[in-house]
Amino acid sequence: MALIVQKYGGSSVADAESIKRVAKRISEARKAGHDVVVVVSAMGDTTDELIDLARQITPIPPSREMDILLTAGERISMSLLAMAINNLGVKAKSFTGQQAGVITDAVHGKARIVDVVPGRIRETIEKGSVAIVAGFQGVTQSTNDVTTLGRGGSDTTAVALAAGLGADVCEIYTDVDGVFTADPRIVPSARKIDRITYEEMLEMAASGAKILALRCVEYARRYDVPVHVRSSFSGAPGTLVTNTPVAVVDAAAPNEEEVVMEAPIISGVAHDRSEAKITVVGVPDVPGTAARIFEVVAGAGANIDMIVQNISVASTGRTDISFTLPEEDGPIATTALNAVREAIGFESIQLDDQIGKLSLIGAGMKSHPGVSAKLFGALRDAGVNIEMISTSEIRISVVTREDNLDAAVRAVHTAFELDTEAEAVVYGGTGR
Amino acid sequence: MALIVQKYGGSSVADAESIKRVAKRISEARKAGHDVVVVVSAMGDTTDELIDLARQITPIPPSREMDILLTAGERISMSLLAMAINNLGVKAKSFTGQQAGVITDAVHGKARIVDVVPGRIRETIEKGSVAIVAGFQGVTQSTNDVTTLGRGGSDTTAVALAAGLGADVCEIYTDVDGVFTADPRIVPSARKIDRITYEEMLEMAASGAKILALRCVEYARRYDVPVHVRSSFSGAPGTLVTNTPVAVVDAAAPNEEEVVMEAPIISGVAHDRSEAKITVVGVPDVPGTAARIFEVVAGAGANIDMIVQNISVASTGRTDISFTLPEEDGPIATTALNAVREAIGFESIQLDDQIGKLSLIGAGMKSHPGVSAKLFGALRDAGVNIEMISTSEIRISVVTREDNLDAAVRAVHTAFELDTEAEAVVYGGTGR
Repeated sequence: MALIVQKYGGSSVADAESIKRVAKRISEARKAGHDVVVVVSAMGDTTDELIDLARQITPIPPSREMDILLTAGERISMSLLAMAINNLGVKAKSFTGQQAGVITDAVHGKARIVDVVPGRIRETIEKGSVAIVAGFQGVTQSTNDVTTLGRGGSDTTAVALAAGLGADVCEIYTDVDGVFTADPRIVPSARKIDRITYEEMLEMAASGAKILALRCVEYARRYDVPVHVRSSFSGAPGTLVTNTPVAVVDAAAPNEEEVVMEAPIISGVAHDRSEAKITVVGVPDVPGTAARIFEVVAGAGANIDMIVQNISVASTGRTDISFTLPEEDGPIATTALNAVREAIGFESIQLDDQIGKLSLIGAGMKSHPGVSAKLFGALRDAGVNIEMISTSEIRISVVTREDNLDAAVRAVHTAFELDTEAEAVVYGGTGR
Repeated sequence: MALIVQKYGGSSVADAESIKRVAKRISEARKAGHDVVVVVSAMGDTTDELIDLARQITPIPPSREMDILLTAGERISMSLLAMAINNLGVKAKSFTGQQAGVITDAVHGKARIVDVVPGRIRETIEKGSVAIVAGFQGVTQSTNDVTTLGRGGSDTTAVALAAGLGADVCEIYTDVDGVFTADPRIVPSARKIDRITYEEMLEMAASGAKILALRCVEYARRYDVPVHVRSSFSGAPGTLVTNTPVAVVDAAAPNEEEVVMEAPIISGVAHDRSEAKITVVGVPDVPGTAARIFEVVAGAGANIDMIVQNISVASTGRTDISFTLPEEDGPIATTALNAVREAIGFESIQLDDQIGKLSLIGAGMKSHPGVSAKLFGALRDAGVNIEMISTSEIRISVVTREDNLDAAVRAVHTAFELDTEAEAVVYGGTGR
């Protein structure tokens, strides 16, 4: 008998029928003898509707009030889900982030979890009830104020609770069958990954794979919480994210453990359309200039991803520096840089939001020569030009024209023999 | 400079525009130098929509979960209202019932307030901010569970906070100009009452006047909180409910006090369509029978209002007992009584839900002879038959056919010279 934390996103609880379906799955796990803690997001479009209401009131809502407003969404979904489970003859109680002991800092809108004190949750499951917990929210210890965790918040709530409770597994239910070797919307022959390490999953998430938020994987890795990404529409095992590339531990069939002696080198191909590229043209090639540029960009609150510096042109003593950043940070970074153009002495700024990023992720990539050669060859054969390159221990990323990104992903996926014959099933949107 | 608690119902905050209008009124009170605490209900139909969602999930939702669900409504309205006030340049913060220190018992769905510990509210107004508090909700002290107060809950929250803070006045904003001598929808010539005592208001509320909930008036009376019922659509003074029938204390014009030496005897005419009548036919006229009947009815959870026992018919030694009760309690009371028919020995049960109740309320009624004679005369002249009569120190109630109720209210209103020339303004629905 295991202690399982399950997380259901907004699309899994979009209406009364969906809630009943999810309730059935939860009660089956409970009836099988497991202790079950459920983390749930707001129903379907509730959050967007609440944001829209706030916009009708004021263009700049105070973030503390915004958090109180948005947390109404989980309150609705969690109580309805508890009702639906009770209706199936299984005891269930719902808890707000505060009641579940999710303590955060006071940064409204994107609070970080600082502690989890799940006394009431433990008490509830010890009494044989299912505990339903509101995702995405917490409470500050000092002022007892409601906070929200920002993007990917419910996944993070689930992993944090699993860590705090010492759960056997944290199941993240979504609308696809697991983590795929590429986005099945772009590569229909993409293959479901049975197991992946935290590090690889981190690189996937950081490279644009939207299935798990980066911070959730970081949390899981730090506390060594096995995360099982699976579909809320089927009973099939999904993708297990753990410390070691061992076997899938399915709570429903825990005996099928097997040790994989040789993990596949390449996990998958991620892509990201959400970045822009800024090129600082004609930068004086003297020590400290790059540092000053990135100080300015960071000071403006922009997050920098990839950086490339060209070789200096000897005749001018000048160079170009390019970097990528989230598209929405482009304008503030450009404004901040233009303000110091004369002081730093560069010539001009170019902002380009028509770029795409492709990342190939796999463990031990550095110890297997030829991986980057094969990647570049595949892109060349597909007629895709490479604008920037960056590498890590287990990842190679390239920037291309946004128009070429889909073709690039398909070409690389095929070149690394990731294609499968079966077509992946995609069910709908994604939750929060 | 006064400390004012203002309460706005659901119809006053039904949409973004209404919320902005209410925010303007609140910020004006704050800018005038008053300390302002606001209690707010859920927006318009939110509560009904949430109830409907729960019904789609299960016919019998657990009351604890129902309370969590319903309190989402105030969370939305209170945060939006706080945003709207901030947008007008006045600081405002919103608080849940728990954060505001509204402690209740654990009877979910109709909890009673057991204590108010408004430390955070006091702190907030001392810093010059407006405090917005969610109406209708509280928290249990022992388990930290969310509760709702049931019908009239937000009014009660407002009065309880006013008592806990020692406020100068509790303003209940509604969609009419105050308490009227009769329902203006039935009697267009009804007159707004400038001042009324807690006792008279209690009798009005108990007799079907829906403007203030009975429990809210009871609370105000116990803690001597002046309640000012007024319109959220106009700036005119409304009805002041206090201990003594003195003058209206308008926070905006506190100097206009005047002492009324002789209060009008008759406050108004209330009516109630929500009751049913049960007649127990052929009851053996022996001691203890009535007691057994009402034990059975009370045991079934039905609330009894008026009781009439006919004179026993000498030839049979039997009598009839009639009583009124809320229409929705009719079926359970009938079922419970039929189960003991043979044991008690009565002949049959009649349930009649086509009745109406008219109540005439006024201080010192017993010391002014002729009041009941005038009442019965007015009803006779209007051709209205009286089926039951009950009296108290300051009230006479009669039961009539429901069809005759409107005509009866108008006739009595005219007979006691309550009519005015100006027509009352009615703005819309009523809040929770």
